[in-house]
Amino acid sequence: MTQIQWTRKDLLGLRDLSREEIELVLETAKSFRDISLRPVKKVPVLRGKTVANLFFEPSTRTRVSFELAEKRLSADTIHVASSMSSIVKGETLKDTARNIEALKVDVVVMRHGSSGAPHRLAHHLKASVINAGDGINEHPTQALLDMFTILEKKGKIEGLNVTFVGDILHSRVARSNIWGLTKLGANVTVCAPKTLLPARVGELGVRVTTDLCQAVKDADVINLLRIQLERQQESFFPSIREYATAYQINREILRDAKPDVLIMHPGPVNRGIEITSEIVESPASVILDQVTYGLAARMAVLFLVSGAAKKEKEAK
Amino acid sequence: MTQIQWTRKDLLGLRDLSREEIELVLETAKSFRDISLRPVKKVPVLRGKTVANLFFEPSTRTRVSFELAEKRLSADTIHVASSMSSIVKGETLKDTARNIEALKVDVVVMRHGSSGAPHRLAHHLKASVINAGDGINEHPTQALLDMFTILEKKGKIEGLNVTFVGDILHSRVARSNIWGLTKLGANVTVCAPKTLLPARVGELGVRVTTDLCQAVKDADVINLLRIQLERQQESFFPSIREYATAYQINREILRDAKPDVLIMHPGPVNRGIEITSEIVESPASVILDQVTYGLAARMAVLFLVSGAAKKEKEAK
Amino acid sequence: MTQIQWTRKDLLGLRDLSREEIELVLETAKSFRDISLRPVKKVPVLRGKTVANLFFEPSTRTRVSFELAEKRLSADTIHVASSMSSIVKGETLKDTARNIEALKVDVVVMRHGSSGAPHRLAHHLKASVINAGDGINEHPTQALLDMFTILEKKGKIEGLNVTFVGDILHSRVARSNIWGLTKLGANVTVCAPKTLLPARVGELGVRVTTDLCQAVKDADVINLLRIQLERQQESFFPSIREYATAYQINREILRDAKPDVLIMHPGPVNRGIEITSEIVESPASVILDQVTYGLAARMAVLFLVSGAAKKEKEAK
Repeated sequence: MTQIQWTRKDLLGLRDLSREEIELVLETAKSFRDISLRPVKKVPVLRGKTVANLFFEPSTRTRVSFELAEKRLSADTIHVASSMSSIVKGETLKDTARNIEALKVDVVVMRHGSSGAPHRLAHHLKASVINAGDGINEHPTQALLDMFTILEKKGKIEGLNVTFVGDILHSRVARSNIWGLTKLGANVTVCAPKTLLPARVGELGVRVTTDLCQAVKDADVINLLRIQLERQQESFFPSIREYATAYQINREILRDAKPDVLIMHPGPVNRGIEITSEIVESPASVILDQVTYGLAARMAVLFLVSGAAKKEKEAK
Repeated sequence: MTQIQWTRKDLLGLRDLSREEIELVLETAKSFRDISLRPVKKVPVLRGKTVANLFFEPSTRTRVSFELAEKRLSADTIHVASSMSSIVKGETLKDTARNIEALKVDVVVMRHGSSGAPHRLAHHLKASVINAGDGINEHPTQALLDMFTILEKKGKIEGLNVTFVGDILHSRVARSNIWGLTKLGANVTVCAPKTLLPARVGELGVRVTTDLCQAVKDADVINLLRIQLERQQESFFPSIREYATAYQINREILRDAKPDVLIMHPGPVNRGIEITSEIVESPASVILDQVTYGLAARMAVLFLVSGAAKKEKEAK
Repeated sequence: MTQIQWTRKDLLGLRDLSREEIELVLETAKSFRDISLRPVKKVPVLRGKTVANLFFEPSTRTRVSFELAEKRLSADTIHVASSMSSIVKGETLKDTARNIEALKVDVVVMRHGSSGAPHRLAHHLKASVINAGDGINEHPTQALLDMFTILEKKGKIEGLNVTFVGDILHSRVARSNIWGLTKLGANVTVCAPKTLLPARVGELGVRVTTDLCQAVKDADVINLLRIQLERQQESFFPSIREYATAYQINREILRDAKPDVLIMHPGPVNRGIEITSEIVESPASVILDQVTYGLAARMAVLFLVSGAAKKEKEAK
C-alpha cells in the first residue's frame, strides 16, 4: 500500500504526478469500485459539498460519468455548458473562476477546447479543479481509468507492453496515458500513419512505429484512439478506407498478437473503421469495463482533491 | 386487490400487458397518489438507484413529470437529450445501451422518434426500460395515467364508453389507450376524418366513426388528441378551420352528451382548435388531474420495474 | 429585530414590499449567510419541497445562484429553459401555470423577457412565484443581495448615499434597488447620459444627474450597471469609447470620492468599459461579495415564500 498522502488541490494532468500519487489514485479507485455494484449505490462522502461541471466542449459520456460519480458520492452538482467564445479568453476565464469561488463551490470539473485552460482556472481558484479534457493536452481521468482497467485485468502495470493505435497527434487521451504508463514502468508503443504522429513523440520515452503488425505483436494491451471522421477533410490521412486497411484492429491483425491481449477504446467506437465489430464483441475487449471503472476512477479523484481523505485521517 | 406479482423488467407498451398487470399498476399508482400532496413530497423508495432519462425527441412535459416522479422517489437522475441521427441507427443504439449498462444505471426512461427503439434498447439491457413514447407506436405511461384518472373519477373502467377524437393515425397515446382500455373491458370508439384513421383500426376491437355527434352521444369519457399543426402541410385535413368545424369539442356538441361526461386531453391543448377554452375550464374537464395523476402513475411504474416491490416482499 | 411575520405567497418586486418586509428578508439572509461557508453546506429546510426554475431568458449566473441556494436548502429542483415565443403569450402562460400547479410544485422561480410575466403567473398559481428578472421591470433578489451586501459592509443602509451609474433606462436591477433603498432611507442618485435615463425617473424619489463627478463625490456606495454592448447599434450612446470617457469608474474619478466608498456591480463586468480592471481588483470592490451574499439572499427568499418560516413558528 502506498504510504503517501494526497496533498494536491487539483488534478490537471498526469505529467505533474509522481508514481506514488498515481498509485494512490488507483488504490483509492479500488476502494470505490464496488459502490456502483450495490443495490444502494450511494455513500455520503461528499454530502454538502458542491461540484460544478463546466463543459465548454460538448461531451455526453464524460459529463454523465462525472455526474454519476458525484451523485453517488452525495455531492450537490451544478452543470454549466457553454460554447461562448467570450469565456475562452483569459481574462474572462479569471472572472469565471472568481465567480465560482464566490459561490463557495468545492470542486470544479472542467472540459475546455484550449490546452491549459483548467490550469489557468486552478491558478485563480481556491476550489479544486479536475481537468476533464483540455484541447490536445491531457485527459487525466481517462488515463487513470485506463490504467485502473489494466490493473484490474492484468494485476500489474509495470513491465507490460501497451500499444496505442490511431490519431496520436490530436489525442489528449494518448498524452495522459503516456505520462502515466511510463511513470508506472510500462513499455509504451505508439502506432499511426506519419501524419498522425506528433513531431517529437519519441522524446516522451515511447517506441514509435507506423507498422501495425510490429506494434501489435508483443502487446499486452492495445488501446485504440478514435479516428475523428470530421478531421478527414484536413487530409491527415487519404481516406477512411485507406486508414482502415492499414490500421484497423481486426481478427487478421490479432492473429499474431498475444492470446491474452486486452483491447481498449475510450469510446465512442467507429465500428468497421478503427476496429471491427467482431473484436469489439470479443472476450479480449474490455471497452465496457473501462466505462464502469471510469466511475470508480472519477470517484477516487473527486474524493482525493476535495480533501475528504485528509479530513478523514485528521478525525482518527 | 390484484394478487399477482410484477415480474417484468421493462414497461414497453400496454399491448404486451395482461389485464391483471395493468390493474396492478393502477393499484400501485393509488398508493403513490398522495405523496405529491404532502408537505414533504419524498419517499426513500429508490434511494441509491440511478434513473437515466434519454430523450431523443424533445419533451418538456413528459420529461418534467418523470423527473419529478424520480426525485420524489429519491432516485439519482441523469438527463441526456439528443437529436443526433447517428444514435437512431440500430447498431449505435446497442452501443448506447451497453454504455448505460456499464454505468450501472437501474432504470432507463426513453423517448424516441422511431417506433420500437425502446424495445431494442430493452433487449440489450439488464437495466429496466420505460417507454416514454416511441414513434407512432405506444406511450404507455400516458395511457396508464389516463386510465388512472378515469378510475379515480368514475370508480371503474369496465363497461364505460370511452371515445377518442383527433389524429388517431399518428397517435401513440391513442394506441396505448386502446390496448389498455379494451383489456379492462371499456368500449372504445375512435372518431376522426378518414385521413386521420389508421387503415385497419377496427381490428383493434374499437368502434370507428367519422361522425362526432355519434361518437360523443353515449360517451362516459371523451379523450381528445392534440392536432399537430405542423402536420397540416402534409394535407391530412384541408385546413385547421375545417377540422375545427367538424371535430371541435365545444358547448354545442356536448349538448347531447351525458351530463357527467369526462373531458380528457394529454396536453398541450390547442384552445379554439380541438377544444374551446370554455370546455377546458368547465367542471367536466379533468385535464389538470391527468397531469397530477401522471406523477402517481409514473412513480408506480418506476417502483414496479425497478424491482423495489419484489425486494420489499422478500424482506417480509 | 423585525417583529412582523412574512405573509406573502410571492416575491415579485420591491415596489410592493414594506420597509419591514424588506428588513425581514435581510435579517433572514443574515441567518443563512454562513451555511455556504461550512464544510457541509446543506440544511434540510426545504427537504421534500419542489422548486421549478423557469428561465425564458438565458442566464447562467442567476440560474446557478438560485439552483445552489435551492440545493443547499435540500429542495428538489427542476429546470425548464425556453425561448419559445408561444409561451410568451398570456393564455399559454396561464396554461403553463396550471400545469406547474398540477405537478404540485411549491415554488416557481421565473425569469422572463416580458415585464409583468411573473405577476401573471403568480395570479394563476397557488404555488409561490419568485421573480428572477422580468423585462425592464424588476429583479428583486438582485436588489436584496445588493442591500444585504451594503448592510454587511456598512452596518446600515439608512442615510447612506447610493449612486447608480450606467444604463438606468433598461435596468431592472436599478429599478428594484431604487424601490428598496428609498424605502430603507438611503439617498439614491442615478447618473447616466440623458439617453439612458427614464423619462420621469425623478418621480421615484432619486437625485438625477448626467455628471459623474457630482454623482461620485459624496457617494458611500457606487453601484455600476452593465453596459449592454448589444444595445450600441440602437444608438443610445455614440460609441463605447465615448461612454467610457464620460462614465467609466476609474482611479481618476474616484480621487474625489469618499475613502471608504464601496464599488458594486451585478456582473458580468465589462472590464475597461464601465469600470477599469484596477478598480475591480481594488479593496473598495465588493463585486464578489455580492455573488456570495446572493446565495444567502436567495435562500432567505425561498425560505420565506415557501412558508417554512410560518410553519416553524406554528410548531413552537
